[in-house]
Amino acid sequence: MAPKTTLDQVISLAKRRGFVFQAGEIYGGSRSAWDYGPLGVELKDNIKTQWWNTFVRGREDMVGLDSAIILPSAVWNASGHVATFTDPLVECTSCHKRHRQDHLIEGFVAKKGRAPTGGIGGMDEIACPDCGTRGSWTEPQMFSGLMKTFLGPVDNEEGLHYLRPETAQGIFVNFLNVVNAARRKPPFGIGQIGKAFRNEITPGNFIFRTREFEQMEIEYFTHPDAATEHFDTWVEACWNWFIDLGINPDNMRRFDVPDGERAHYSDATIDLEYKFGFAGSEWGELMGIANRTDFDLNSHTEASGTKMQYFDQTSGERYTPYVIEPSFGLTRSMMAFLVDAYREEEAPNTKGGTDVRTVLGLDPRLAPVKAAVLPLSRKEELVPTAKRLADELRGVWNIDYDDAGAIGRRYRRQDEIGTPFCITVDFDSLEDQAVTIRERDSMSQERVALDQVRGWLFERLSK
Amino acid sequence: MAPKTTLDQVISLAKRRGFVFQAGEIYGGSRSAWDYGPLGVELKDNIKTQWWNTFVRGREDMVGLDSAIILPSAVWNASGHVATFTDPLVECTSCHKRHRQDHLIEGFVAKKGRAPTGGIGGMDEIACPDCGTRGSWTEPQMFSGLMKTFLGPVDNEEGLHYLRPETAQGIFVNFLNVVNAARRKPPFGIGQIGKAFRNEITPGNFIFRTREFEQMEIEYFTHPDAATEHFDTWVEACWNWFIDLGINPDNMRRFDVPDGERAHYSDATIDLEYKFGFAGSEWGELMGIANRTDFDLNSHTEASGTKMQYFDQTSGERYTPYVIEPSFGLTRSMMAFLVDAYREEEAPNTKGGTDVRTVLGLDPRLAPVKAAVLPLSRKEELVPTAKRLADELRGVWNIDYDDAGAIGRRYRRQDEIGTPFCITVDFDSLEDQAVTIRERDSMSQERVALDQVRGWLFERLSK
Repeated sequence: MAPKTTLDQVISLAKRRGFVFQAGEIYGGSRSAWDYGPLGVELKDNIKTQWWNTFVRGREDMVGLDSAIILPSAVWNASGHVATFTDPLVECTSCHKRHRQDHLIEGFVAKKGRAPTGGIGGMDEIACPDCGTRGSWTEPQMFSGLMKTFLGPVDNEEGLHYLRPETAQGIFVNFLNVVNAARRKPPFGIGQIGKAFRNEITPGNFIFRTREFEQMEIEYFTHPDAATEHFDTWVEACWNWFIDLGINPDNMRRFDVPDGERAHYSDATIDLEYKFGFAGSEWGELMGIANRTDFDLNSHTEASGTKMQYFDQTSGERYTPYVIEPSFGLTRSMMAFLVDAYREEEAPNTKGGTDVRTVLGLDPRLAPVKAAVLPLSRKEELVPTAKRLADELRGVWNIDYDDAGAIGRRYRRQDEIGTPFCITVDFDSLEDQAVTIRERDSMSQERVALDQVRGWLFERLSK
Repeated sequence: MAPKTTLDQVISLAKRRGFVFQAGEIYGGSRSAWDYGPLGVELKDNIKTQWWNTFVRGREDMVGLDSAIILPSAVWNASGHVATFTDPLVECTSCHKRHRQDHLIEGFVAKKGRAPTGGIGGMDEIACPDCGTRGSWTEPQMFSGLMKTFLGPVDNEEGLHYLRPETAQGIFVNFLNVVNAARRKPPFGIGQIGKAFRNEITPGNFIFRTREFEQMEIEYFTHPDAATEHFDTWVEACWNWFIDLGINPDNMRRFDVPDGERAHYSDATIDLEYKFGFAGSEWGELMGIANRTDFDLNSHTEASGTKMQYFDQTSGERYTPYVIEPSFGLTRSMMAFLVDAYREEEAPNTKGGTDVRTVLGLDPRLAPVKAAVLPLSRKEELVPTAKRLADELRGVWNIDYDDAGAIGRRYRRQDEIGTPFCITVDFDSLEDQAVTIRERDSMSQERVALDQVRGWLFERLSK
């Protein structure tokens, strides 16, 4: 058997420790979506907070928004999604399973290092991933990636709505509202974090491709002349955000999406890819920065009759802003932070030898548990002090309390979920009113007075 | 014309200043959902943070979860929602508009102070709210409040999924996952914040009743014998959360929902209501605390074949926990915080007289803007200092910078959005390296050294 890849190890850890559960598992499970358990929701929330504080609250030229998931079909007709947000679907005539034609071809290229050359666009050479039959495919049919639902009492055209496939459109339709209510002028941006839905034919690769997922999107409105400059600046800012939060730059790369492969609205797109280590193709898209030009504001102007333009009182110029869109996959970012942080290493054990320990070397700002309070034993005299300390620290911080098993094993349990600090209450604590704090990566220990613990942590947790 | 109610004033302020926009406004708008603008998303986010830090991170007996919005129909069959989550719908035979029969009857009772007595369950006495025709109704038909969508390539039974009408079921189906991965034993609870969707026939009252909304829910698992005790404790804890964050207790009340009016799963329900000041009925439900007994875990055990029970190793007892559910409406809470915080009062103006000022007296923890930096004039020498200070404070805090108009007007703009502190950079600032900080409610002013501003705010903003 091949040794497990880091990705396999991370997926196994994520399920075992409660970062991620399969949605609807007791009913057979689903690859469409995943549930985020106690540690996963904290990690995901910390990523959101860092993103929001960096790109929205942290910048004078940005504001936030939270728009509805379900929007009337008029919005999606105007945006071009109803017409063009489709994928070519082929069916295996032997087992009747369906696949995206472009994914089959990509898979072939990744495996063989060349495009398929057989008949019918190369499909003759491609085997069905389900039953293995080669070249037995129906003609491709275009299939919509939009999920529909009906609002109101009757399932008719009037009630037809779509779940958003991107949060972006909710920003575009509010462009004038924000300009007026928040008194903004270009260049300025609107950031939004939220769920989006795409009816993927072949969801897979854990939380990488799902039908329900989360995005963190910015639509940055600028004078057309300055669009390229802002595009370049945003590519840098996005790249740096990941590096600052601990991603190894060797595991990231830029991909300049060529003509013909970009989304219908984009004049230029650079994807930031991460080396997830998937079987076949190692790299996967983490996010994209697109120059959407004035496509969306023009489309909504045309469809709604509301002029989505900006009038610059200083220059007297009226223009439709260009839009630079940095669009982050939140769940993909979380997966990258997990894979990048995972390591196994030799570490001294309590018996004078060494063990292999698993560590999630997450940046303390992202770590789902900020500190764990561990009474050295369950003896009555230690427990009240330890519980009181844990209660004092809880609130803004997510704090663990663990009194089960040998202290070495408890350290290991915290290491593998990325807890930066373990606070041990021992028998000396009752005498000297102090505790031992162990740092995750260096495993160094420091004695800290009980009434100083909060301040000590605060200094190290709030970069 | 009747004087505007506080509710009207709040709605007008919310739209004007960018707390809340109508969803899809440029396409005619929708009452199904609302978009939260730059100030609204900050307020809503602050409410979420306070709730999460109080009830999830702040308690040893709680963990968090974030489960999928779309779940297979099997889940909703088991939960009883497909069968019972329905409302009686009647159609006016004159104008063909549809209404919920129970809402029509409630409206009649609120207006007349008595139940309708006419034929066909009183419907003969009720006029159509749209066209005014009296007693011209079809027989009621049961109508499902669930929104459906289809996953996968074909719209068939296999692909049929529902958008969750409550976040709760995502918690129940993960009960065993959390017990095992997070090593929890009852009594313990799981908290979740997220969107839910109900196909309301008559959405309305601003953000109070919408088809897309947000919940903050806790499912608290306990031994059946302790359920009533925990129920009572949770009612208190929920009540206190609102009061601690500034809601006037005179504007809240408890409503013990009688037999026959509770949801199909509930053995006891207490609603916390807030005096929103709606036309007709002033009070509206803010949240409910329900004793769901072992209904949900039993239903899922039966439908999935997975035993949703807990085995207590100490007592040797195996049992199905009872569930106490405090279920908060996030968007309703936001509306209550806004209405409760709104006041108009006489305040001295800069000319020695008085003006009426509008103040949102929000708790600083909830305020969407934590501080505003205001250079006394746009003169070149003040701007760099003011901008540098604003940049230094930005990040964890949402900070405004405003240099437009008279300082008195700028104070008023901040007062009406609830900004607790205004920091003025004046000509003395260049000399003494200090600024004047004005507090929103008392309007008292204090001189603070530039390099002390962050610490000064920190003390007052992080209770």
